Amino acid sequence: MSLGIGIIGAGIMGADHARIVAGQVSGAHLAAISDISEVRAEAAAAGSGARVLADGLAVIADPAVDAVIVAAPDATHAALVLACLAAGKPVLCEKPLAVTVEECLAIVAAEAATGRTLVQVGFMRRFDPAYVAMKATLDGGTLGAALLLHCVHRNVAPAYAFEPFMAIANSAVHEIDIARWLLGREFVRATVTRSRTARPADPILLTLESAGGALVSIEVFINARYGYDVRGELVCERGTVTLAPVFGNVLRHDGAEATGFATDWRPRFAEAYRLELQSWVRGIAGGRYEGADAWDGYAATATAIACVRALETGRPVDISLVARPV
Amino acid sequence: MSLGIGIIGAGIMGADHARIVAGQVSGAHLAAISDISEVRAEAAAAGSGARVLADGLAVIADPAVDAVIVAAPDATHAALVLACLAAGKPVLCEKPLAVTVEECLAIVAAEAATGRTLVQVGFMRRFDPAYVAMKATLDGGTLGAALLLHCVHRNVAPAYAFEPFMAIANSAVHEIDIARWLLGREFVRATVTRSRTARPADPILLTLESAGGALVSIEVFINARYGYDVRGELVCERGTVTLAPVFGNVLRHDGAEATGFATDWRPRFAEAYRLELQSWVRGIAGGRYEGADAWDGYAATATAIACVRALETGRPVDISLVARPV
Amino acid sequence: MSLGIGIIGAGIMGADHARIVAGQVSGAHLAAISDISEVRAEAAAAGSGARVLADGLAVIADPAVDAVIVAAPDATHAALVLACLAAGKPVLCEKPLAVTVEECLAIVAAEAATGRTLVQVGFMRRFDPAYVAMKATLDGGTLGAALLLHCVHRNVAPAYAFEPFMAIANSAVHEIDIARWLLGREFVRATVTRSRTARPADPILLTLESAGGALVSIEVFINARYGYDVRGELVCERGTVTLAPVFGNVLRHDGAEATGFATDWRPRFAEAYRLELQSWVRGIAGGRYEGADAWDGYAATATAIACVRALETGRPVDISLVARPV
Amino acid sequence: MSLGIGIIGAGIMGADHARIVAGQVSGAHLAAISDISEVRAEAAAAGSGARVLADGLAVIADPAVDAVIVAAPDATHAALVLACLAAGKPVLCEKPLAVTVEECLAIVAAEAATGRTLVQVGFMRRFDPAYVAMKATLDGGTLGAALLLHCVHRNVAPAYAFEPFMAIANSAVHEIDIARWLLGREFVRATVTRSRTARPADPILLTLESAGGALVSIEVFINARYGYDVRGELVCERGTVTLAPVFGNVLRHDGAEATGFATDWRPRFAEAYRLELQSWVRGIAGGRYEGADAWDGYAATATAIACVRALETGRPVDISLVARPV
Repeated sequence: MSLGIGIIGAGIMGADHARIVAGQVSGAHLAAISDISEVRAEAAAAGSGARVLADGLAVIADPAVDAVIVAAPDATHAALVLACLAAGKPVLCEKPLAVTVEECLAIVAAEAATGRTLVQVGFMRRFDPAYVAMKATLDGGTLGAALLLHCVHRNVAPAYAFEPFMAIANSAVHEIDIARWLLGREFVRATVTRSRTARPADPILLTLESAGGALVSIEVFINARYGYDVRGELVCERGTVTLAPVFGNVLRHDGAEATGFATDWRPRFAEAYRLELQSWVRGIAGGRYEGADAWDGYAATATAIACVRALETGRPVDISLVARPV
Repeated sequence: MSLGIGIIGAGIMGADHARIVAGQVSGAHLAAISDISEVRAEAAAAGSGARVLADGLAVIADPAVDAVIVAAPDATHAALVLACLAAGKPVLCEKPLAVTVEECLAIVAAEAATGRTLVQVGFMRRFDPAYVAMKATLDGGTLGAALLLHCVHRNVAPAYAFEPFMAIANSAVHEIDIARWLLGREFVRATVTRSRTARPADPILLTLESAGGALVSIEVFINARYGYDVRGELVCERGTVTLAPVFGNVLRHDGAEATGFATDWRPRFAEAYRLELQSWVRGIAGGRYEGADAWDGYAATATAIACVRALETGRPVDISLVARPV
Repeated sequence: MSLGIGIIGAGIMGADHARIVAGQVSGAHLAAISDISEVRAEAAAAGSGARVLADGLAVIADPAVDAVIVAAPDATHAALVLACLAAGKPVLCEKPLAVTVEECLAIVAAEAATGRTLVQVGFMRRFDPAYVAMKATLDGGTLGAALLLHCVHRNVAPAYAFEPFMAIANSAVHEIDIARWLLGREFVRATVTRSRTARPADPILLTLESAGGALVSIEVFINARYGYDVRGELVCERGTVTLAPVFGNVLRHDGAEATGFATDWRPRFAEAYRLELQSWVRGIAGGRYEGADAWDGYAATATAIACVRALETGRPVDISLVARPV
Repeated sequence: MSLGIGIIGAGIMGADHARIVAGQVSGAHLAAISDISEVRAEAAAAGSGARVLADGLAVIADPAVDAVIVAAPDATHAALVLACLAAGKPVLCEKPLAVTVEECLAIVAAEAATGRTLVQVGFMRRFDPAYVAMKATLDGGTLGAALLLHCVHRNVAPAYAFEPFMAIANSAVHEIDIARWLLGREFVRATVTRSRTARPADPILLTLESAGGALVSIEVFINARYGYDVRGELVCERGTVTLAPVFGNVLRHDGAEATGFATDWRPRFAEAYRLELQSWVRGIAGGRYEGADAWDGYAATATAIACVRALETGRPVDISLVARPV
């Protein structure tokens, strides 16, 4: 039995998901896809046998579509996820789940009303083998309790029309989710430091304090130029664990020993995306997902918004989440 | 359209292939499996919906089986592959294709007689991202011509009833194939050195000379104890390329910074096996395979046999292959 | 012509300096040493021909002593350095130059009154080849301007009677000096974060903002247990430079590939100490020193004191230095 | 008491020794130096107070010279070392001790006749911290007996008028000595392989078999272009130890993470040369040396000559050393 997947959005992420669903996932096939650019949707569907539909709602409504991936612009996420819930179809929504706290909470409530688990948020790092191994090491107990997580997140260049808050909303939000997942804690306070003379795309430093005591230090540098680079070290009572460097052969050439960086995040997290989709497809059968759920989507958005305020005000900001529904 | 895969043999390799076909490959499903141990076959089939059949010939004959994976004992490979050819079904045969030169050549001839390409040999390293990147670097030309390939192949412990020739037949044969593939050359001479006082499982050194001049140096150490470890460096005119170390987080603990080794080859080549099977499934549709073909299987066996003779006689041995049919 | 060196204090640092002066430095010899423990002083002098004197003032006064190393307890530094200035003898004072801002400024003034340069402060990292190479890379210009310096400073275990401010006064002060030296900037603001539930020796995070805009992020973890570990990465506009990992062979053994950590700072900075002393001896001849001067000692102490206040108050603290005398 | 050192030869090695003796060694000073080029000798002596003398014999005869370093052309080594022995002065002779077996044995005999130990051969790798740590690991016993030593020796470009035997005489001889020292064994057989179409400076592979059973595999590549690169891994019964990579910061820049290679051997072995000279100076006092002695010089030359014959004949060559005098 092969699951029919519909994808809304055929931009970089949507096209990537389409390629993976069509050629690398067991138990699923690409059934339908839509995009505001029909050309882009056609390109993503090519060779897969999937139909190109007029818009996201058509994808959700299509009887050949058993489950939906939302990879449309951030501002449309909430409405599309709510439509999936209304249709009773499992949905994997690219991060963020929604751009406001209110929308996130509306989704949490709407899903609860269905009595089922239908929403997964695309925080793919939870499937990255290096992060998974880091969590296994922490949970294994040899190193003792977690005290401090260092994160570095560097992109090659800022997007067109870049605003500093985007460094948090688009990039640091991944660290926020993975830190919540690793530490099993929510954050209660955020401090963000920019240099005094800094240009908008210069690096920023975030310090998050968790309820349980562990600290998280995050560098986000959206204009690092040399390559896409994500790193992390978890400091525990009796030792530390550092993310494996990404795969790469070593060249000795022209006076140096070198390994290369990619220019964007896809090679670094290619395996994570594949494993995320395979896990989601496997999970749909039993209604049990391994990925981030709607609550995680809410907590990440709420925390990121607090960090943006800390950046904009130059002051520490307290973070308070609503009580988690039981 | 999903391809029905039949697997002959449910030992370590067969069970692994069954797991991958059933849960990680797009466009295929596990249709049938057999093993001399029915218990083992049942275990490998569990949850996949595949049927357990009496023996390999039943698997090949099963109408639900579109293509066959041979993972039975080495001595049975030739007969099973010939049966697949007789049935006109694509077959992926675990290495070695066959244990004698004569059997290999019989397969090459039988396949030619079908007028189709049906045989792929399971030299999975050709799909390992690190070897693929090494070949891309060489073919890219920046480093100039290949002069020397260093290979290290270490296993944790020898198999029960280990004989020194098995270090070549089971282990070095992987290096022989990957060196042929990387360099695009056949070998003309083999020298093998063991230490004078060596126990059977002590390391041996192989030196292969290729027709085009490049040398290959291989250490095979079947009793390395500390972990499964495969490494390689290709030395070219203007630089070298070294295989990326296998994935692994870094632990700082108890006075040391460390990464772990697995105890066998499966974690190291898990991605290669998955990519090999995905490529094979994709290739069956168009009858075009990316993996090693029957001729490669012959050349690897013939070269390994020469190395065994060099080991046993203590003298350099010339290698001569039959002319490749056009 | 060999310079007679007198050492005040034969504890860990003093004994190490004695060993280096006696056996590894060209152009100098150990002339005299003192310690409150005569046994300890005798041990440090053994085999070198140096005389053991009653106290620090006797060392300074000894005609066989051409230059003095102060390695006595921190609280005595100021008085001993002032005595060296009064005697007109060059002095290398272990860090800190003095424990209060007032004492530091008194030394700066007293040295200025001699009309000569006589004081060097033992910030040995300025001679560590990795830091020297980092500065050369920055000054070379390829990477553009410095934006952010990450520092990690981990000790195995806190000293007896440890107070959190000691993590700054004893450990972070090294990062403060090396950051000033690398960036060529003074700091204007310090933020220090401890976790809410933290025990005294848990890690702390310092964020320093420099006048020119570059940020410095420092982790100090005085109880890291696994080993002594100092690391740094300088992030610039067009790339980053990371301190070379400390020397060490790689062991593959028992399931892991590992390199070892030392249990204290001496192996990590052994070469820096030797080069510091050799440079100082060479510099005395011409009255030109490469190391940190009295002003550097003042700035490091003043900045560390501000960091201690930030730690104790939980608030960002502005740092203001007096104007540098011309 | 400072030892007066005389240096014969002010080429690359001689000038380097002069610089180290004059500025980095405790207990010694540069007393005299000679070279066929007076300009070169003057340059090496500049600022040190050393006298420039007419020739090597004048250096040996100079009463201000307590001990001699021979860094003159290889062919002159034997005569100069014999002259030092005749004068009863300790001598550190750059490798090789002499270019023929007969000359080496003459030196061994002449030294024995003095009844003292006066000769040290400049195999500086014995003082390299990485090799020293490798030997300590082996001798420590955790890894069990040594089975195989892998050596890689790469130079950037061949010398003017390069002949293939020079790859052995100038380069591989270092591996021969260090392997003898690490393993504590002499070699009994050498096999050398060049590729069939190889140009003179293409890589060669040497396999040495020791009396005790351990094997040594050596790649010498005199034209590696990308940088000076020496590596080694010692494979033992229960694990392996690999030489630490040479010091170097890590640059992330322009799409790659890289560390640099030097273009010749001096940075790689700078610390070894300094430690060698400091050890030699310290050893002269007590007549006890840690470095290679005259017998080691003989064994290295005799083994290298056998390897050259193996290279030239294309056949394995048995190595037999004379009995070591007691």
